[in-house]
Amino acid sequence: MPDPRFFTVAGPFTLEHLAAVTSAELASDVAPSLLIRDVAPLDHAGPTEISFLDNRKYVDAFSTSKAGACFVHPDLAHRAPSGMALLLTRTPYKAYALAAQALYPPPAPRPGTATTAVVDPTARIGEGTEIGAGVVVGAGVRIGRRCRIAPNVVIDDRVMIGDDTVIGACASLSHCLIGNRVSIYPGVRIGQDGFGFAMDPAGFVRVPQLGRVIVEDDVEIGANTTIDRGAGPDTVIGRGSMIDNLVQIGHNVQLGASCVVVAQAGISGSTRLDNHVVLAGQAGIAGHLTLGAGARVAAQSGVMRDVPAGEEVCGSPALPIKQFFQQVATLARLSRGTGTRARED
Amino acid sequence: MPDPRFFTVAGPFTLEHLAAVTSAELASDVAPSLLIRDVAPLDHAGPTEISFLDNRKYVDAFSTSKAGACFVHPDLAHRAPSGMALLLTRTPYKAYALAAQALYPPPAPRPGTATTAVVDPTARIGEGTEIGAGVVVGAGVRIGRRCRIAPNVVIDDRVMIGDDTVIGACASLSHCLIGNRVSIYPGVRIGQDGFGFAMDPAGFVRVPQLGRVIVEDDVEIGANTTIDRGAGPDTVIGRGSMIDNLVQIGHNVQLGASCVVVAQAGISGSTRLDNHVVLAGQAGIAGHLTLGAGARVAAQSGVMRDVPAGEEVCGSPALPIKQFFQQVATLARLSRGTGTRARED
Amino acid sequence: MPDPRFFTVAGPFTLEHLAAVTSAELASDVAPSLLIRDVAPLDHAGPTEISFLDNRKYVDAFSTSKAGACFVHPDLAHRAPSGMALLLTRTPYKAYALAAQALYPPPAPRPGTATTAVVDPTARIGEGTEIGAGVVVGAGVRIGRRCRIAPNVVIDDRVMIGDDTVIGACASLSHCLIGNRVSIYPGVRIGQDGFGFAMDPAGFVRVPQLGRVIVEDDVEIGANTTIDRGAGPDTVIGRGSMIDNLVQIGHNVQLGASCVVVAQAGISGSTRLDNHVVLAGQAGIAGHLTLGAGARVAAQSGVMRDVPAGEEVCGSPALPIKQFFQQVATLARLSRGTGTRARED
Repeated sequence: MPDPRFFTVAGPFTLEHLAAVTSAELASDVAPSLLIRDVAPLDHAGPTEISFLDNRKYVDAFSTSKAGACFVHPDLAHRAPSGMALLLTRTPYKAYALAAQALYPPPAPRPGTATTAVVDPTARIGEGTEIGAGVVVGAGVRIGRRCRIAPNVVIDDRVMIGDDTVIGACASLSHCLIGNRVSIYPGVRIGQDGFGFAMDPAGFVRVPQLGRVIVEDDVEIGANTTIDRGAGPDTVIGRGSMIDNLVQIGHNVQLGASCVVVAQAGISGSTRLDNHVVLAGQAGIAGHLTLGAGARVAAQSGVMRDVPAGEEVCGSPALPIKQFFQQVATLARLSRGTGTRARED
Repeated sequence: MPDPRFFTVAGPFTLEHLAAVTSAELASDVAPSLLIRDVAPLDHAGPTEISFLDNRKYVDAFSTSKAGACFVHPDLAHRAPSGMALLLTRTPYKAYALAAQALYPPPAPRPGTATTAVVDPTARIGEGTEIGAGVVVGAGVRIGRRCRIAPNVVIDDRVMIGDDTVIGACASLSHCLIGNRVSIYPGVRIGQDGFGFAMDPAGFVRVPQLGRVIVEDDVEIGANTTIDRGAGPDTVIGRGSMIDNLVQIGHNVQLGASCVVVAQAGISGSTRLDNHVVLAGQAGIAGHLTLGAGARVAAQSGVMRDVPAGEEVCGSPALPIKQFFQQVATLARLSRGTGTRARED
Repeated sequence: MPDPRFFTVAGPFTLEHLAAVTSAELASDVAPSLLIRDVAPLDHAGPTEISFLDNRKYVDAFSTSKAGACFVHPDLAHRAPSGMALLLTRTPYKAYALAAQALYPPPAPRPGTATTAVVDPTARIGEGTEIGAGVVVGAGVRIGRRCRIAPNVVIDDRVMIGDDTVIGACASLSHCLIGNRVSIYPGVRIGQDGFGFAMDPAGFVRVPQLGRVIVEDDVEIGANTTIDRGAGPDTVIGRGSMIDNLVQIGHNVQLGASCVVVAQAGISGSTRLDNHVVLAGQAGIAGHLTLGAGARVAAQSGVMRDVPAGEEVCGSPALPIKQFFQQVATLARLSRGTGTRARED
């Protein structure tokens, strides 16, 4: 059970309600009024808890689980223990996520502005929005409705923020337009100058960075991630993209919709990711490239060329993944051969 | 045109003025009094805007551009469309940068200390300096003239900062001396303890870190970058060096003048970079090494040995770049061979 | 000598006192009452300073040092210059660290709460604890005795912190239990949501993260490091572990006691490190793995499989270190051969 010190469970909810919010179908023998009080993994769940089976690896845990209810794909329903109430769905993990959201809704904003916040009189703050202690809101800023701005956030002049957006503690924003339902985690830096300068024997000459950062709706940006504003064009984070912690996004980078960028990855200036691109952890992408829709970059890979749509690449410099692992195998084989030969010499 | 919500254009300026601030030469047929209102790229610029040609790749865009004026190398001037006013220079990108700086000067400090800032009475703040809301300035701190200290910055006891320096939101500084015209971006951490401890079966024993961080004039330090103070000697960032976001600089590291360290690179303790060293993104340098003047480290490289002046290295572990790409080619060839041989078996 | 602007030396102390606090043994000919005023490296130390010899590489420096006193292994004592007072110990660096701690004790907390701090009336703060300017402490928080909470820190509702713990400037904590004598550096992010969501064609669905972060006693967490809370189980940082700057620790990660994680390394979700595991800089560990006790991961390595206890791995994907360097040598040899053959073709 989640620690009640930090988590307050809503509910209980009937199975009927949970089926409705998750678009799952109650199996025919299930009592719709059965009450569910919590979520739990298969091996810990009890009779008032709901769990999920999303991976065939866990079918045994499913078959012996004491969970009162479970989201499961119809094809695996026959493996359920007797007495378990089944909620049938082709996307059990998604259904579980929605049930967990119902039982553990995000904390609601506590409308109002803390007395130690400093809000410029020309800023406009929407109804139901919470402005935490120590927050600084600059001139001409607009913040939508039902936002939560955590303590010690700094929002620079004229930034615009949509509705239902959350800004984590100690984050700072400038030169940006932020959409609705965006989650910006603590310590994020958005909108600072990109890394642009002209070389000169007498010292570098900074090039003014005259673009913005556009963060579309439903984006998440992980803790201490940095997103520089554009140099002239904008830096754009497409709708629904998920960015993890400590990611670097350079000036003029454009992410399409629903991209995933895992922790400590970096994208150099002016590179474009089409929709549904995935960068695994610590991947690095050189500047001025295009990664086609659905391209995937493995962890720690270094991408120096365009990646076609749908292709998966790996290595530094990155290759198509099959070729990469072929090279890994080749080198291993040759190196083992070496050992033998060395003994023969 | 840059979004007027965030950017205020100065000017207009005459070509004569722009030629003067950029050290460019007006072509003989140009009207010195022609007014320029903005900067723009070649393909977007109009008759009151100035652009630049810095790369032969864009000569066609230059020849068809509608820009009213353009910085260009004398050798390419003959490719200009008729009617375009030319400003001749051997460094068109630098000239463009200077013109853009004239048209978009950095925001001036708004002298004074915000009422919610907490400044120790023993701190001394120079004339014309702005101290933002929520800033905390410790005992004995000295801050020069015309600085901008953004909101929620923390400056620990006795830190010294020169003139015309900018500290971004939520940054924190301790045990450091910061020069003139330094730009420290939001979330930067300077002067905390280095990672130094003695091993012991009963637990690690921390070694007091008794050095400082010295940041010389004209340095830039990117968002959320961390620079540890020295263990005994100092950590030094040489004059005019440009450090990008999320960079790690360990204790006792010394950077010469005009080094460039791209995002997410890391430099381990006691390593020394001579002047004009360049580390590309996500490069890592082991401790106690020396990189000679003008050495270049490719992206994601891992440097485990000294790098001679002027040499470029690549790979992990890093090799001279020619050798690295030779090995890449060798492995690709052998791996293709493997496939063939496998079929023959 | 450390800059008195930033460091205040305690003492002087007699050799007898320093021997006692470091568990070293005074050599037979040493005057126990000799006064030591400072620490210094062998080549800079003078007659009132104490140094150490920990590495045979520096025996010459030891033999010519002017240090008044020195920690040294008994086996090397005979190399000392005449007149140097010797403190004999099998762990000279540890002894030096303890002597330096005595001479440069960490700044004591200045008990009390700054007037610009915002502390919820339901929070409980221990005796002797300092709460800096701009700190925000949420409902139900408990902070132990003699802690130092630096300016502009944000501590979210119901977080618990032990005794003698230091939280650096601008850090933010939520959903966590922090032990005694923990050092959290500036800009650290602890307890935010992990990176967990269910894929869905209509957009990702966030999975509520219902675990906590547990930081055990004597842990250090470097500047701008991020530690996500668990998804259901907890994220745990074991006793005495040392984590450097800009490290990413994903949800459900468990570190045993006395692990070392060097700067910019990353650990993906649900991976477990047993006691005394060492990750060098920029290493990356995939999710759901186990690294056995004493395992070592070289810098920039990418670990995709479990690592047995005591094993050292290197490379991306990581291999046992001997095998890795064998492959490096093989490829170098084959590539040189290539060059020759190419000429022969």
